[in-house]
Amino acid sequence: MHLPHINPVDIQLAEALQLKINQKTKPLGALGVLESLALKVGLIQQSLHPKLHHPKAFIFAGDHGITAENISLFPQAVTAQMVLNFVAGGAAINVFAKQMGFDLEIVDAGVNAEFASNLPIQHKKIAKGTQNFLYAPAMSNAQCLAAMQGGEALISKSVAQGSNVFAFGEMGIGNTTSAAAIMSVLCGLSVHACTGRGTGLDNQGLLHKTAVIEAAIAKHQPALSSPLAVLTHLGGLEIAMMVGAMLSAASHQCVVIVDGFICSAAALVATKIQPNFLDYCVFSHASEESGHQQMLQHMDARPILDLNLRLGEGTGAVLAYPLLQAAVNFLNEMASFETAKVSQSHA
Amino acid sequence: MHLPHINPVDIQLAEALQLKINQKTKPLGALGVLESLALKVGLIQQSLHPKLHHPKAFIFAGDHGITAENISLFPQAVTAQMVLNFVAGGAAINVFAKQMGFDLEIVDAGVNAEFASNLPIQHKKIAKGTQNFLYAPAMSNAQCLAAMQGGEALISKSVAQGSNVFAFGEMGIGNTTSAAAIMSVLCGLSVHACTGRGTGLDNQGLLHKTAVIEAAIAKHQPALSSPLAVLTHLGGLEIAMMVGAMLSAASHQCVVIVDGFICSAAALVATKIQPNFLDYCVFSHASEESGHQQMLQHMDARPILDLNLRLGEGTGAVLAYPLLQAAVNFLNEMASFETAKVSQSHA
Repeated sequence: MHLPHINPVDIQLAEALQLKINQKTKPLGALGVLESLALKVGLIQQSLHPKLHHPKAFIFAGDHGITAENISLFPQAVTAQMVLNFVAGGAAINVFAKQMGFDLEIVDAGVNAEFASNLPIQHKKIAKGTQNFLYAPAMSNAQCLAAMQGGEALISKSVAQGSNVFAFGEMGIGNTTSAAAIMSVLCGLSVHACTGRGTGLDNQGLLHKTAVIEAAIAKHQPALSSPLAVLTHLGGLEIAMMVGAMLSAASHQCVVIVDGFICSAAALVATKIQPNFLDYCVFSHASEESGHQQMLQHMDARPILDLNLRLGEGTGAVLAYPLLQAAVNFLNEMASFETAKVSQSHA
Repeated sequence: MHLPHINPVDIQLAEALQLKINQKTKPLGALGVLESLALKVGLIQQSLHPKLHHPKAFIFAGDHGITAENISLFPQAVTAQMVLNFVAGGAAINVFAKQMGFDLEIVDAGVNAEFASNLPIQHKKIAKGTQNFLYAPAMSNAQCLAAMQGGEALISKSVAQGSNVFAFGEMGIGNTTSAAAIMSVLCGLSVHACTGRGTGLDNQGLLHKTAVIEAAIAKHQPALSSPLAVLTHLGGLEIAMMVGAMLSAASHQCVVIVDGFICSAAALVATKIQPNFLDYCVFSHASEESGHQQMLQHMDARPILDLNLRLGEGTGAVLAYPLLQAAVNFLNEMASFETAKVSQSHA
């Protein structure tokens, strides 16, 4: 597979952007994080007048063989049930995407169920779920690359249709287990530090989940020689498709809005593949899932929201969008001290 | 003055609201702070189907005699200049109010300037600024009460027009000095703990501002026997009008969205006058202004956003609104496990 090439943003424009921000009618720096976001989007688009067009949210859905190890409170069938809930418009992401003006695309990357072909789903199923990675690689190399290419194709089409900002989300019972395993290997942290309660495990369930991940990593250790190998052995089809989509979005100079723990694990893989990827990422929120904070720190990321969310689906990414839009809007629409005839500070 | 009466919210509805929240298709508690907000708005409106109607943002503007003591980086004239910037649509609050669907009302509570009567301003001027409270009470009793009544009248009119949610903001060069003084007395904290850099004072400026506030409080100490007396002696006309407006909004069972440091000081006064007021408050953000965190703690408040904002104008309150709306929307629009035919957890 030919991975999309990602250029670093050209920081030559940073000075002019910062000057424009500083001339707005407000005390210096008074818009805090929104000023950093305005600078970031300006650099991504290489423009003093950035615009966000046709925001689109993807939910990548996939099943996980590792659910056979009893690492989630919910049965695997919930992945497919939730996909149908997305189709019917009843999930949290439906409500928030509608409110925030996002087009929502539901992607079957690898759900263990058949969906009627006429449903409004992107039918990109690679397999009916991954293998149980306690015993075998989650995917074959070919499956992992096909998933990434599927994600890339979705983004290319959306970019051609005019979108330049994407929220990424996922649905997959068991995928915090996969994400924790990926994190442990790619961040070099103990499984304990990376593993959380997912949808609500108790202490015993958490210990079991941790032990399963430790055993799985120990089994595959010799093969985990590259970010792609980690993704292939420990990942999920929805995670791999998300990695491909994220890399593609960055290669098209689009804004990538990262959701919570699983989505951040995909961003982590993308970053390890192409470090320039981070120039295009906006991290939407600090998840309640244990380990997310350290994963964000590893990527030197400062999330916009901290609302104790732990739902996935891209909900945090979509919820943060009005603040990203506000950043762009103040940059474009606020008056300067000069045009508004407002006196500047003595400082 | 007859202060509006505020009933505590009836928490009998809390159980039914929580049950409705828990039956939505998501892991228990997975929407974090949004769940608390949904519960809060449901209780305020005493409804399982709360709705937010015609959100309105008020900017109360007023000048401060204490600016003669050189406690701000910006000259007093900036208050009036910024009011004209609000009228022209060039300030941050204009941009954000437009984006978030707020009607914006600009209120002259006591600016030291004359505004043309045909400007789209609520002309409620009580005086051309307060007295310098280092030497005299900031307001007379009559002025303070008139300001509060002015705020109450604005809310009553808006409620009659169908609004049930209000964002409060302010503009007034010098008003972090007033807010810090109020906080120090009402929270029983040192002036040092309450005083911040405002629009950007350096260390020397901060020490001077702190000393001025300490001297002012020492001078008025014997008279500071009630929250109203604190407001009268150390407050601002815009702060007093905001207190009246806030109490009125709560008395009408409306949602009060509190902005940053100065707005929170007004909420603090309102709370000390009527503790039930807090049942109606949503604290929008943790300001970068030193002292705000402790003021929020004093009111047991958990702000929604933490974006290092320190701009005032109601910007934080308006920026948090989509999250409040999202909380109401998920409560009204998400499917339940039963209607969506999604399996619940084993737990």
